[in-house]
Amino acid sequence: MDQKEIFETYESQVRSYCRNFPTVFKSAKGSVVTDCDGNDFIDFFDGAGALNYGHNNPYIKSKVIEYLEGDGIMHWLDMMTAPKAELIQFMEEKILKPRGLDYKIMFPGPTGTNTNEAAFKVARKYTGRPDIWAFMGSFHGMTLGALAATTDRNDRKGAGVPLPYAHFMPTPYQFPGLDVINYMQTLLDDDHSGYEKPAAIIIETTQAEGGIYTFSNEFLQQLREFCTKNDIVLITDDVQVGCCRTGSFFSFERAGIKPDIVTMSKSIGGIGLPLALTLVNPKMDCLNPGEHNGTFRGNQLAFVASKASLEFMLNEHVEDGVREREAVIKKFLEEKVARKGVEIRGIGCIWAVDLGCSRLSKAVLDECFRNGLILERAGRDDSCVKIMPSLVIPMDLLEKGLEIVKKAVDKVMDEEEAK
Amino acid sequence: MDQKEIFETYESQVRSYCRNFPTVFKSAKGSVVTDCDGNDFIDFFDGAGALNYGHNNPYIKSKVIEYLEGDGIMHWLDMMTAPKAELIQFMEEKILKPRGLDYKIMFPGPTGTNTNEAAFKVARKYTGRPDIWAFMGSFHGMTLGALAATTDRNDRKGAGVPLPYAHFMPTPYQFPGLDVINYMQTLLDDDHSGYEKPAAIIIETTQAEGGIYTFSNEFLQQLREFCTKNDIVLITDDVQVGCCRTGSFFSFERAGIKPDIVTMSKSIGGIGLPLALTLVNPKMDCLNPGEHNGTFRGNQLAFVASKASLEFMLNEHVEDGVREREAVIKKFLEEKVARKGVEIRGIGCIWAVDLGCSRLSKAVLDECFRNGLILERAGRDDSCVKIMPSLVIPMDLLEKGLEIVKKAVDKVMDEEEAK
Amino acid sequence: MDQKEIFETYESQVRSYCRNFPTVFKSAKGSVVTDCDGNDFIDFFDGAGALNYGHNNPYIKSKVIEYLEGDGIMHWLDMMTAPKAELIQFMEEKILKPRGLDYKIMFPGPTGTNTNEAAFKVARKYTGRPDIWAFMGSFHGMTLGALAATTDRNDRKGAGVPLPYAHFMPTPYQFPGLDVINYMQTLLDDDHSGYEKPAAIIIETTQAEGGIYTFSNEFLQQLREFCTKNDIVLITDDVQVGCCRTGSFFSFERAGIKPDIVTMSKSIGGIGLPLALTLVNPKMDCLNPGEHNGTFRGNQLAFVASKASLEFMLNEHVEDGVREREAVIKKFLEEKVARKGVEIRGIGCIWAVDLGCSRLSKAVLDECFRNGLILERAGRDDSCVKIMPSLVIPMDLLEKGLEIVKKAVDKVMDEEEAK
Amino acid sequence: MDQKEIFETYESQVRSYCRNFPTVFKSAKGSVVTDCDGNDFIDFFDGAGALNYGHNNPYIKSKVIEYLEGDGIMHWLDMMTAPKAELIQFMEEKILKPRGLDYKIMFPGPTGTNTNEAAFKVARKYTGRPDIWAFMGSFHGMTLGALAATTDRNDRKGAGVPLPYAHFMPTPYQFPGLDVINYMQTLLDDDHSGYEKPAAIIIETTQAEGGIYTFSNEFLQQLREFCTKNDIVLITDDVQVGCCRTGSFFSFERAGIKPDIVTMSKSIGGIGLPLALTLVNPKMDCLNPGEHNGTFRGNQLAFVASKASLEFMLNEHVEDGVREREAVIKKFLEEKVARKGVEIRGIGCIWAVDLGCSRLSKAVLDECFRNGLILERAGRDDSCVKIMPSLVIPMDLLEKGLEIVKKAVDKVMDEEEAK
Repeated sequence: MDQKEIFETYESQVRSYCRNFPTVFKSAKGSVVTDCDGNDFIDFFDGAGALNYGHNNPYIKSKVIEYLEGDGIMHWLDMMTAPKAELIQFMEEKILKPRGLDYKIMFPGPTGTNTNEAAFKVARKYTGRPDIWAFMGSFHGMTLGALAATTDRNDRKGAGVPLPYAHFMPTPYQFPGLDVINYMQTLLDDDHSGYEKPAAIIIETTQAEGGIYTFSNEFLQQLREFCTKNDIVLITDDVQVGCCRTGSFFSFERAGIKPDIVTMSKSIGGIGLPLALTLVNPKMDCLNPGEHNGTFRGNQLAFVASKASLEFMLNEHVEDGVREREAVIKKFLEEKVARKGVEIRGIGCIWAVDLGCSRLSKAVLDECFRNGLILERAGRDDSCVKIMPSLVIPMDLLEKGLEIVKKAVDKVMDEEEAK
Repeated sequence: MDQKEIFETYESQVRSYCRNFPTVFKSAKGSVVTDCDGNDFIDFFDGAGALNYGHNNPYIKSKVIEYLEGDGIMHWLDMMTAPKAELIQFMEEKILKPRGLDYKIMFPGPTGTNTNEAAFKVARKYTGRPDIWAFMGSFHGMTLGALAATTDRNDRKGAGVPLPYAHFMPTPYQFPGLDVINYMQTLLDDDHSGYEKPAAIIIETTQAEGGIYTFSNEFLQQLREFCTKNDIVLITDDVQVGCCRTGSFFSFERAGIKPDIVTMSKSIGGIGLPLALTLVNPKMDCLNPGEHNGTFRGNQLAFVASKASLEFMLNEHVEDGVREREAVIKKFLEEKVARKGVEIRGIGCIWAVDLGCSRLSKAVLDECFRNGLILERAGRDDSCVKIMPSLVIPMDLLEKGLEIVKKAVDKVMDEEEAK
Repeated sequence: MDQKEIFETYESQVRSYCRNFPTVFKSAKGSVVTDCDGNDFIDFFDGAGALNYGHNNPYIKSKVIEYLEGDGIMHWLDMMTAPKAELIQFMEEKILKPRGLDYKIMFPGPTGTNTNEAAFKVARKYTGRPDIWAFMGSFHGMTLGALAATTDRNDRKGAGVPLPYAHFMPTPYQFPGLDVINYMQTLLDDDHSGYEKPAAIIIETTQAEGGIYTFSNEFLQQLREFCTKNDIVLITDDVQVGCCRTGSFFSFERAGIKPDIVTMSKSIGGIGLPLALTLVNPKMDCLNPGEHNGTFRGNQLAFVASKASLEFMLNEHVEDGVREREAVIKKFLEEKVARKGVEIRGIGCIWAVDLGCSRLSKAVLDECFRNGLILERAGRDDSCVKIMPSLVIPMDLLEKGLEIVKKAVDKVMDEEEAK
Repeated sequence: MDQKEIFETYESQVRSYCRNFPTVFKSAKGSVVTDCDGNDFIDFFDGAGALNYGHNNPYIKSKVIEYLEGDGIMHWLDMMTAPKAELIQFMEEKILKPRGLDYKIMFPGPTGTNTNEAAFKVARKYTGRPDIWAFMGSFHGMTLGALAATTDRNDRKGAGVPLPYAHFMPTPYQFPGLDVINYMQTLLDDDHSGYEKPAAIIIETTQAEGGIYTFSNEFLQQLREFCTKNDIVLITDDVQVGCCRTGSFFSFERAGIKPDIVTMSKSIGGIGLPLALTLVNPKMDCLNPGEHNGTFRGNQLAFVASKASLEFMLNEHVEDGVREREAVIKKFLEEKVARKGVEIRGIGCIWAVDLGCSRLSKAVLDECFRNGLILERAGRDDSCVKIMPSLVIPMDLLEKGLEIVKKAVDKVMDEEEAK
């Protein structure tokens, strides 16, 4: 049985990404992934945002191997360990303090959905209220608590049961004539709105799965003010757009706001190892010991990799590198890819080429793959091709990848227009 | 700031295990864990069951390091990769087939709670019914979908919202006069029971967190028959009691039954790396592509470790080793530890010394720790000291640990009786 | 269009009772109902228990007409009116006080389901807990709050949405080997039962729709004690079995217990007029003004009829009359109707002839109707013919009706046995 | 004990309306109500809309007494009876057919909340979807199914449990810049809105409890089109604003639309007797026999009164009379009552004098009562004094009442301005 057959024969049909990229991958380095037949691909997918510092980042990896070779403890739940102490201290002193932040660090299960579940538990307990408000277009995870705040209709249907205690707010980009903050204030103030004050509002400062929609600094500031004024916990979901993805380490820094809870996962694992953090305003740190727990909260190898990635990030000035790459991507996409029927949106190193429907975006994806570029789709009806390279992708590879995108879009759109 | 202060200052108060073991751990090998001050501890805790093959198992670790050094791809969601193909093939051909099993393998998020969430989605979609039945005493996870089927009152309170669509069945050990199977059949047959037929029944063949209660082979067989007859999906949660913990690789083998879904995590990660599997009866493999997903389903390092652990398990005849250790533990506990007010229960390498209340079990835990043994508690009111060593613990360490338990129990109970 | 066609053409197919009795009724007097063709029927149906004092009871009716003719106010929500004051005073001073009861009287919407919804609101607010426990076999109403505590599977399916926050307890008659009180205490005491302490337990002391199952005095006393000890609100649903139906005015008097809330409707309206009351332990009378309301809580004509019915009940010693009729019915059914395959159960003037399945009970119903007797069915699979005459039915009519039942049962069962 | 003391001593504190009108009422005729001390009051409250044809309407009442004296059957659940046949036939042939309507008539429990519960069951079963959409400001009842679609925060809090499966849409009067129909279409079309297509949308064409807000004909037409296009059941709640209250018999006639379900109660009972109807599009008439039921669906006296009221309505041209009174009220309120801080809104014979807050509206209510006029409040923060006289109130009484309102408003507002 060849390897592809193994998957077709034995793996559940729930598998999805593999269907778009019909080859078996073997190794990877930086922004290049290699399959078992020796074919190289440029990576604009980035493990869905979990590989911000590149595949097998040498600095991070050296720390991981060193730890392994020293018989460092591998797994130890939430006990105190040396690598955990080092990660916490580094995060507090080198990342949070310089940014004027003082969160308590909570270690939930090592997935994005789990950190959001943890955040919701904290917010609900702290406020005594059950509802979470999220924004239309949001994605916050697939376990039932987080899924309730996720908007994708197919994802929600998979629950098999109702998903209450979450309500969805309109966004400025959907309804330009609507003052969203005023809308939400009305829901609270009108004693016949049918709504209760929520425990928390959760927001991705840039909606990723929703189609790369970035909330303005002004909106984020108004939202922070709204939450403060109404005693609502503000949660920013930095699972995909944190770790410098949009420019600064935390995605909300550009707006100068301080959320009450920040949820992190994906690239916080440094090198693709499962890890998640929940950063909590100290006054809201109200869960009893063990009130949220789980086995793999003590993934020591990920602690080692995470700390190394933070060191790497600071030492290599990754934030600056993102801004440089942002300029390149923005210019290229806006000047060379945008055309009638093709909309460009993005920030930092996360961009959408929105083709308006899944049929066209799939054609572009396939064409890119045929030409040695891996990227994925996002957005309503999966209409967007998502440009999400590593934050340290070499400029030549970045440009090469963008060229492949341009040619694919032109081919697909030319054919479409010729119809 | 010393390392303990780091945790007290910066980590969320939700931390729990660390409160019982006030030292900072550094390295580990086999069944011995060493703290930063160089103190060694025998490990009867086993990472809550995630380290069945011992800390830093050399065979597994060598494979992990080898993979890392070869720039093997680290993280790739559910794409096809070489290590994933190898794990799937090994699992199917060396583990499932010889046991007459033919499950499709699903890769959920890498945690126990996530594999149970996945199992519930499958069962609900396959049957079109919303309810899950679990047994009193069960633990199935902490995200809201899994938490709904978890019985611990404190865990449930943490949800902050109601947890519907799960109902709890009585167990034979709670109500010896009640025919539980007949009770459940009545709930289905009586058109005024108030109950609907559930999508699935989930069971731990040995309830771990509930206090180490083992369901008899006869009961498991009747349950399998009940589910088949009534067209209900039978899920066995082998997260803690799978991977040879109770003797055979799957916990249900002793009863000769085939569950429809088997959920696995913890030691399936081989060496403490986060991994979870959901094994699904092929005819029930009904989720659409992506209907359950998550970023860290492609933890390649864990795939490597997992396959290596399965090889190790077969090559080293771990199942036989469990039976040998079971005999030692059972004999020791029943002959030397059992006494008035102290009940012994267990199977394989998971045993409870039930002291009847948390005050006494905490005293035993503390005394053990002072004497160089790490173990945790479980059960109603945390009344049990849980004996859960690695499955390959050397016999001398096992006996040494058991002696520490015996002395601690005697000390605590003697003092209690003297009151 | 003849009158039957009017119903078939214009009325919703949800109509149900009329399907068993295909004639158009016109007038009624005492226990005799007359159709438009002048056919008389003996009434063992009693408006489903709403006509305990007979159709068009002359004493009650005279009061109603007198009130109407005096331009008494007809409808006035919950404002203070003369007939309401008189009803309240009579209920308190002549009914409650002599029985050692001191409930506050709440006027919910004028239906049985509404008084149960009101009771649940009170219990939930008073305790701050959401769950209601009801017993398997119970019927408490059809609006969603009450329906959640109703067990009939078809009724529940009609909701179209899940019905959470109600849990169903087993009954002694279903599981003779199970100590139900101990079972419930275990659900509370076991911190891994998966259950939370409920706000209230609701019980019909005799389950009517469930198939005429009477809870023993001892069980009711233990239940009262259980609720008191655990600080749970005890609600007795006297909608169908109150107003002397089982002997004493309140159904629970035989057990010497005082429920915390008593829900009443049906015959409390005196002559078939819609009315419901919720009697509440004064210390639990915690709803804010208007926190439960509704338009027709001030059905003054029903207040007049209700008070008149209470006067009639006392003056005519209806409680004694029930006991006389109970003796007659019991003797007749047990001696003349019981046979192999036919079980007899009942109390006061509510009895089941249980034929084991709906096919046979329907045949008996039809045969009775052909012979001039109207009765309905109840119980699991509608297997019971329900004997529920007016409490003041003349003895000769009662006996005549019972003879019709006997002949119908014999005919149907003889034919069945001959098959 | 005097009569007022009876209420204070014995009635539940949930009583509400009576607190605003501290006297005991005895009789009533047309639009005048008389208390036990012989004081007369003009009635602008109208039993909350249940007495559209006046207290003790002589024509209706004569029919009721005649029926009672003839020993007509009083209560008979949903069996076929002569008065029910006559009501159905009259409703179909004299009311529905002339308006081009052909609804099936369903008889739910005799309250407004119950007809809405019935409508929701029908819509959910017909569509297989769980959600109901209602508009902010709506009131649809107090039992849990209907309460879920009611917006009043205090009412909702009384539930004591969450109220899922209902979502609230913004209204044009709250957000003038928002195209509400477009907003709703976006919720359906956007696969990341987080919303599912609802079973039904329920609307009061004029929101009564919400503060007398009338939806425009154009909006209603667009809503009808929206529901048709998207296969959503359109329910109009005519409980308070039907029976000619806003001009035509059905409130929606002015917009020329045909809802799929019309819920009616209050004045459909003719003379204040409890009755409710659910009018259902024949193709949606999908409930099984008994799938929604209840004891008092066969309130024969209300059938007699209802038919008589429909005859009266037609014979006396009540619809025309409403339009005449509308002109008088509108002119008076707009010209003589409106002033700075006092907003006037209304249609037909239901009007709001909106004083902006409950403190001022309560002062006006009290002043009116002192001057012999009874009216109630509605709206956000109860800020509106509600002008809701009988539809057949003599013109002199109407004007007298309006004068009392004017003087009260002036008094209160003058004092307020003088502060």
